[in-house]
Amino acid sequence: MSGRFEAQLAELGVTLPDAPAPVANYVPFAVVGDLVHVSGQVSKAPEGLVTGRLGADMTVEAGAAAARVCAINLLSQVKAACGGDLDRLMRVVKLVGFVNSTPDFTDQPKVINGASDFMVAALGDAGRHARSAVGVSALPFGVAVEIEGIFQIK
Amino acid sequence: MSGRFEAQLAELGVTLPDAPAPVANYVPFAVVGDLVHVSGQVSKAPEGLVTGRLGADMTVEAGAAAARVCAINLLSQVKAACGGDLDRLMRVVKLVGFVNSTPDFTDQPKVINGASDFMVAALGDAGRHARSAVGVSALPFGVAVEIEGIFQIK
Amino acid sequence: MSGRFEAQLAELGVTLPDAPAPVANYVPFAVVGDLVHVSGQVSKAPEGLVTGRLGADMTVEAGAAAARVCAINLLSQVKAACGGDLDRLMRVVKLVGFVNSTPDFTDQPKVINGASDFMVAALGDAGRHARSAVGVSALPFGVAVEIEGIFQIK
Repeated sequence: MSGRFEAQLAELGVTLPDAPAPVANYVPFAVVGDLVHVSGQVSKAPEGLVTGRLGADMTVEAGAAAARVCAINLLSQVKAACGGDLDRLMRVVKLVGFVNSTPDFTDQPKVINGASDFMVAALGDAGRHARSAVGVSALPFGVAVEIEGIFQIK
Repeated sequence: MSGRFEAQLAELGVTLPDAPAPVANYVPFAVVGDLVHVSGQVSKAPEGLVTGRLGADMTVEAGAAAARVCAINLLSQVKAACGGDLDRLMRVVKLVGFVNSTPDFTDQPKVINGASDFMVAALGDAGRHARSAVGVSALPFGVAVEIEGIFQIK
Repeated sequence: MSGRFEAQLAELGVTLPDAPAPVANYVPFAVVGDLVHVSGQVSKAPEGLVTGRLGADMTVEAGAAAARVCAINLLSQVKAACGGDLDRLMRVVKLVGFVNSTPDFTDQPKVINGASDFMVAALGDAGRHARSAVGVSALPFGVAVEIEGIFQIK
């Protein structure tokens, strides 16, 4: 199945991977009414984990690319929540981005822009969302970025 | 009152404590429609605070036990939100777990599993939830874990 | 336009600034049904950013004042979401407060009280909310506090 949003993704050169399964006793998403709460997605690309700490061993550009990976993983989960039809996605409501940061790194917004910009590039106005971006001392598996999200579907 | 869920809790050897009251000008939970937003619950057991920092002075197992304490406190608040009848809980929708971590600790998921596993053990499928787990540099009172949650009730 | 809530704000000596616009490809708030999800608001006052790190170069009182700035910015966004009529605000549902903290600072709740106390002072019972307060290693632009929120409107 390939709808409007997946066609836009293809134009961006992105094929959604199979929705990453969580590695513990929880679920990748929970649907309540028309909202999908997606579990925090880490920067894990098909070719492996994107690890690093902003302010130490990673540029802002590399951090933004890691955030984009999280965004792709979020959309994979939303597609699964939509039974495979991503066009049921009405809008991205909210993202919370956690950036693996040294205490003196203060460009978390530029990093999470990697996800925000991707959402709008892929989904148009439906991709515009409320957002928080914060720096944290450590993330699972040493990944650079973790992002969770709330999505409205039909 | 002792319903189905509290019977399962009793089998796990858990009696829900009185819902911990917040120590400031806010409320322990807010109900909107059929959703309960529960304030971040710290790892405070009846016998005292569970303090520590993962990667420094606490094992993953001790961290998971602290996360379980947070989960018990969350359910105490949900029970209060349900007017004392925990069986009105439909499902755990979402947990966000903050783990007091050194920069080199990366097993936040294993720590928060202490809460996720408990929810499923106590509530069955109703306990399955979306989740995020991140490491933070500091938590209130030096506790090891803080977890907030969204719950659906009837 | 000046309604009941803005009159109470005026008594507190507070005039809501124009809603701060985000500096990236996202929106300051997203409305879904009767809920407004407001993007993380940093401690940026009309006279400039409130920067600092609790436990290092900032007192708890200064941190609480920074949290109050975040709360004012949140209400500015809610007012914008309400088309300029803040009296459409039904209640503050949930706040998540991120405090720029050294690893040994543990008074995050006292800092975020600056926001919680302000909400209740300005809005009365409608200002009571569920809440989380955590310490993070770094925040955008070096600000002391960032707070995101969920609000119910009519």
